[in-house]
Amino acid sequence: MNPICKLFHIKYPIIQAGMVWCSGWKLASAVSNAGGLGIIGAGSMYPEVLREHIQKCKMATNKPFGVNIPLLYPNIQEIIDVVLEEGVKIIFSSAGNPATWTGTLKAKGITVVHVIANTKFALKAEAAGVDAIVAEGFEAGGHNGREETTTMCLIPMLKDIVQVPIIAAGGIASGRAMLAAFALGADAVQVGSAFAVAEESSAHSAFKHKIIAADEGDTKLAMKKLVPVRLLKNGFADAVAMAEADGANRSVLMELLGRARAKLGMFEGDMENGELEIGQVSAMLKEIKPAKVILEDIWNSFRTELQRFSSLPNELDL
Amino acid sequence: MNPICKLFHIKYPIIQAGMVWCSGWKLASAVSNAGGLGIIGAGSMYPEVLREHIQKCKMATNKPFGVNIPLLYPNIQEIIDVVLEEGVKIIFSSAGNPATWTGTLKAKGITVVHVIANTKFALKAEAAGVDAIVAEGFEAGGHNGREETTTMCLIPMLKDIVQVPIIAAGGIASGRAMLAAFALGADAVQVGSAFAVAEESSAHSAFKHKIIAADEGDTKLAMKKLVPVRLLKNGFADAVAMAEADGANRSVLMELLGRARAKLGMFEGDMENGELEIGQVSAMLKEIKPAKVILEDIWNSFRTELQRFSSLPNELDL
Repeated sequence: MNPICKLFHIKYPIIQAGMVWCSGWKLASAVSNAGGLGIIGAGSMYPEVLREHIQKCKMATNKPFGVNIPLLYPNIQEIIDVVLEEGVKIIFSSAGNPATWTGTLKAKGITVVHVIANTKFALKAEAAGVDAIVAEGFEAGGHNGREETTTMCLIPMLKDIVQVPIIAAGGIASGRAMLAAFALGADAVQVGSAFAVAEESSAHSAFKHKIIAADEGDTKLAMKKLVPVRLLKNGFADAVAMAEADGANRSVLMELLGRARAKLGMFEGDMENGELEIGQVSAMLKEIKPAKVILEDIWNSFRTELQRFSSLPNELDL
Repeated sequence: MNPICKLFHIKYPIIQAGMVWCSGWKLASAVSNAGGLGIIGAGSMYPEVLREHIQKCKMATNKPFGVNIPLLYPNIQEIIDVVLEEGVKIIFSSAGNPATWTGTLKAKGITVVHVIANTKFALKAEAAGVDAIVAEGFEAGGHNGREETTTMCLIPMLKDIVQVPIIAAGGIASGRAMLAAFALGADAVQVGSAFAVAEESSAHSAFKHKIIAADEGDTKLAMKKLVPVRLLKNGFADAVAMAEADGANRSVLMELLGRARAKLGMFEGDMENGELEIGQVSAMLKEIKPAKVILEDIWNSFRTELQRFSSLPNELDL
């Protein structure tokens, strides 16, 4: 049996990424009900909002689901209290030191996965006792690693040094990319952008339409002097790019960013001034579909591609 | 039969990238003799030097080999004259408009492949009548696309829109990555960095040793205001990075670059002041080996990984 399916008790080795302003209880429960692992993204939620999403998710599905928690969250203790009180069984932690919380969560019987973008943090996460890692390449949307290592380079490097299962993320929205992730050494995939445009995603409709209209080269890794983040180009991203080209320092960038920019764009629909986090693979997304259809399309095309591979030894005279 | 093996009359669908200061007749003939396609990189050669390399390559192998020609070369007509006079059968063109020379070369019976980094140029190349394309992702060494599209994202996009065979490049130095390239839709792979450190590579020994000592995050895409180029970090690259962070404009960058920087570093071995072009996958390269061993290691691990895949349907309950 696939180690990630076994770990989470799910049917398909497809995880829906926890995404700010996109993945509330509606998306998470839809993905879990369809046989993948849905994840509530706590990054954009106050503790009591998160509690409400967890409770609604439990009512909407009897399948496993998880919560993604950015560890640098200022009120992290309150967030942890909520997930413990609500009996969440699976936590994906990110953006912080995996050593800080993994032991506490594991001691409560929670399955813990940490999101990393380089080998150093993969080893740290493994040493902290996580059950699996999500390895996120440069092409992924949202916050991203400083090394800019792509999925193609990151996964084989990790496979050589860690023992825990690897969930590949970044650039995966098709059966071809999912098969490639397995070829690289991953045991499962985490899919973000493709689920950001799901019908059940809480992203603003204007954002979803801007994503499906996006073409190659329409996202860019920005804010490298703060925390690198992959953004869809718009008025705000262009202003950042111009400031960066002119040598803007951290404080200029922080002022440009201001507060609640991601909410303004992704949730409230201001396509000009909002911060729009999405992956490179948005160039391949062409319609808004139910999460179940998105998951099944990826899974079925993965199976088709895997089937195609059975003729490869013959084609190559092996 | 594999379309790229058929097109070039080679045994393995592995192409050695044409690389400035690395791939002269010694490397190209070694790769071709081992069953891949060796390529002489004309980008760092005066026309008469190129002629000498072609002649020596013909003496060193009776297998097919190619020449890579950057089309923006100032004396491009002289270079074309040399390859025509010397009866070169395979041309990989890059860095320029494929419409300009493809027809002329094809009319002489030459097999023409064009290197692209985005879908727009892939379609242009196909329309110009090329026999195949090399699709190069963000992780690749040397000159690179402005869209920063990674191999993982680029190949599936191309597979949906072009009919000609696709040779994937960028991030490929292992059987896992080669298998991933096939999963993404490629028919073959082009391997650069791994052959740059071959014994037969004409790169300076100091450069080869710096590559095999390189770790994750040690390369960076630089010079984005000129032509983006992936460089190994050193004194020169750091100076460029600092200038760029301060908002340096094109003329400042051109002055910093000066002339013959790549030769100074890659060929003459000045590890501090030279321009060192190499891919992200350099982090995975750990020794200097003969080209034949490099090729066979990739091929054998590709076969092993493909074999491993035969248990995947079972693991996934398919």
